[in-house]
Amino acid sequence: MRYVVIMAGGSGTRLWPLSRQGTPKQLLPIVHGRSLLRLAFDRATRVVPPEQVLVVTGAGYLDKVRAEIPELAPENFLGEPVGRDSLNACAWPAAVLARRDPDAVIAQVTADHIIEPVDAFAAALDRAFALAEDDADALVTLGVVPTSPHTGYGYLRRGEAVEGNEDACRVERFVEKPDRATAQQYLASGDYWWNSGMFVWRADTLLAQLAVLEPATHAGIEMLAAHPDRLEEVFGSLKKVSVDYAVMEPVSQGRTSAHILAVELPIEWRDVGGFASLAEVLGTDEDGNAIEGLAVTLDASGNLVLNTAGSGHVVAVAGVTGMVVVHTPQATLVTTFDQAEKVKSLVGLIAQSHPTFA
Amino acid sequence: MRYVVIMAGGSGTRLWPLSRQGTPKQLLPIVHGRSLLRLAFDRATRVVPPEQVLVVTGAGYLDKVRAEIPELAPENFLGEPVGRDSLNACAWPAAVLARRDPDAVIAQVTADHIIEPVDAFAAALDRAFALAEDDADALVTLGVVPTSPHTGYGYLRRGEAVEGNEDACRVERFVEKPDRATAQQYLASGDYWWNSGMFVWRADTLLAQLAVLEPATHAGIEMLAAHPDRLEEVFGSLKKVSVDYAVMEPVSQGRTSAHILAVELPIEWRDVGGFASLAEVLGTDEDGNAIEGLAVTLDASGNLVLNTAGSGHVVAVAGVTGMVVVHTPQATLVTTFDQAEKVKSLVGLIAQSHPTFA
Repeated sequence: MRYVVIMAGGSGTRLWPLSRQGTPKQLLPIVHGRSLLRLAFDRATRVVPPEQVLVVTGAGYLDKVRAEIPELAPENFLGEPVGRDSLNACAWPAAVLARRDPDAVIAQVTADHIIEPVDAFAAALDRAFALAEDDADALVTLGVVPTSPHTGYGYLRRGEAVEGNEDACRVERFVEKPDRATAQQYLASGDYWWNSGMFVWRADTLLAQLAVLEPATHAGIEMLAAHPDRLEEVFGSLKKVSVDYAVMEPVSQGRTSAHILAVELPIEWRDVGGFASLAEVLGTDEDGNAIEGLAVTLDASGNLVLNTAGSGHVVAVAGVTGMVVVHTPQATLVTTFDQAEKVKSLVGLIAQSHPTFA
Repeated sequence: MRYVVIMAGGSGTRLWPLSRQGTPKQLLPIVHGRSLLRLAFDRATRVVPPEQVLVVTGAGYLDKVRAEIPELAPENFLGEPVGRDSLNACAWPAAVLARRDPDAVIAQVTADHIIEPVDAFAAALDRAFALAEDDADALVTLGVVPTSPHTGYGYLRRGEAVEGNEDACRVERFVEKPDRATAQQYLASGDYWWNSGMFVWRADTLLAQLAVLEPATHAGIEMLAAHPDRLEEVFGSLKKVSVDYAVMEPVSQGRTSAHILAVELPIEWRDVGGFASLAEVLGTDEDGNAIEGLAVTLDASGNLVLNTAGSGHVVAVAGVTGMVVVHTPQATLVTTFDQAEKVKSLVGLIAQSHPTFA
């Protein structure tokens, strides 16, 4: 049976004070009042029924994550006691689902981006599911056709087409985040896709690769699936590593008997990792300001003004441009788009001096 | 007997959202936690005992004003039902005090500025009191030696010295707010003082001038003093005009038998009408930011950051310079020192669209 596993970890420091230690980015109602997690769940249920959706998140976020998807049964939430990167966020649900359903095929998806159109996403997932179901040696990765020489994403080089399946191709190799010049070459060549960090595989196929490539993790994950009560004890002992580094890259290099296939994800793929992309998502008013919440502007343009405090507090901005002003009940941030990268350090500073606000 | 009347009206729009319709500038704890009104009262009691201090303010502010000066008896607060400019803020207490004490001599002082040193202020008031007591035809004005070609103040041109009193001089004429070039001439000439808007006069002398120059106001004010219960009805019918325009200028032009004397007020006189002056009052930290309240800055300098929300809210500023960031529980303002003049229009905008925040 088909399953979709949504990975919803991470803290999203760059969106502070919208995101905070207790409220990661995926839970923020930043897309016209809906969270990225909610949107990811709604996309998933275009492909499988809700019972076949799992969410992997930090144990500390579980209450908020459950509140965001109240229709999901408690056993479909997996709460990681500590962050252990994407390998375990893939391997743990694979082991859990393999016990529930030996024929489980899993689409492992992220909740960090805005994805449009949803129909195209669902169709690509269907194609990838079919590939994984047909080929027990395949790990299928979803590749986004790049629209810019983005240096924040990994890339994959497309190889030859899969015989009898025009929609899929082999993956020649994975490459980590490139520098600007390399990314521009990739874009110009047309041979590269962005590595979306989304995959489809049979649970038993992934677990078999793990048994070869990361035997300790394999043993730990199997123990965890068999003895859920030992979560705290076992999870912290797992190696912290990405699924790309631990599985996809070695498999693409022929280190196991499996192989990697890629399916094109013909979508617009927008990161909302920072304030600039968030402003883009919100769009601008007639003065060129991206505004959400109660705000008044005068002779101001090109600003992002976010106010989550409801109707009891107004944010007023006069005579400025290129500013980022974010107001929440606990904190107010004032910076510029140009300087917004400083927010991460700022949060570090606040974590030291006023930890309750970080 | 000597009295000090403190005028504490006005809304201080330029300091929004610190000052709001219900909380005028003089009540804000902006000078190291103390309000300008409290400082004015403390100055007044250097010259007369508390029983001889009156405060004229807007009726709507009376509760807050009383709370600020709890030691003052209720009958020493005069609450104007509507703002009627400075003539009535001078004439009303004069009529009230003339009934309580036919020999009342009044120092009419403002609460808009920071005045230092207080000793020099008290000494100048003493000299002015002595002049007014000695000369029943004198209206005494207090002149500040200008330190800059300020275009926001009125000026007075000093005339000949008063015989037998080195500290006082005649006033040749009053001039309204000059343009920059004129103000520079005034400053260079050494013949001009800033019109402080503070005066000393016998109550009966002021009332006698009024009877000649503004007979309707005179009659209205006398009725008000005799029938305090008719306040609402009478006050609104009074002409709205400044004491400078209605009394000081015509008297300086010889329109009555009285004359104007001026006493030097050898003080540092700092307006806190806007954010730039407020930043000056606060002083700067090692990064060059003027900060009050809970705030964290990173790679930011030359900013004013005010946070009156207490310990439950942090204001964080990163990578900006020359910004004015003011946070109160009801509103957050973001502008620059250069653009701060826009705040008045901004408040007008807010008064229309979201009146509760204005």
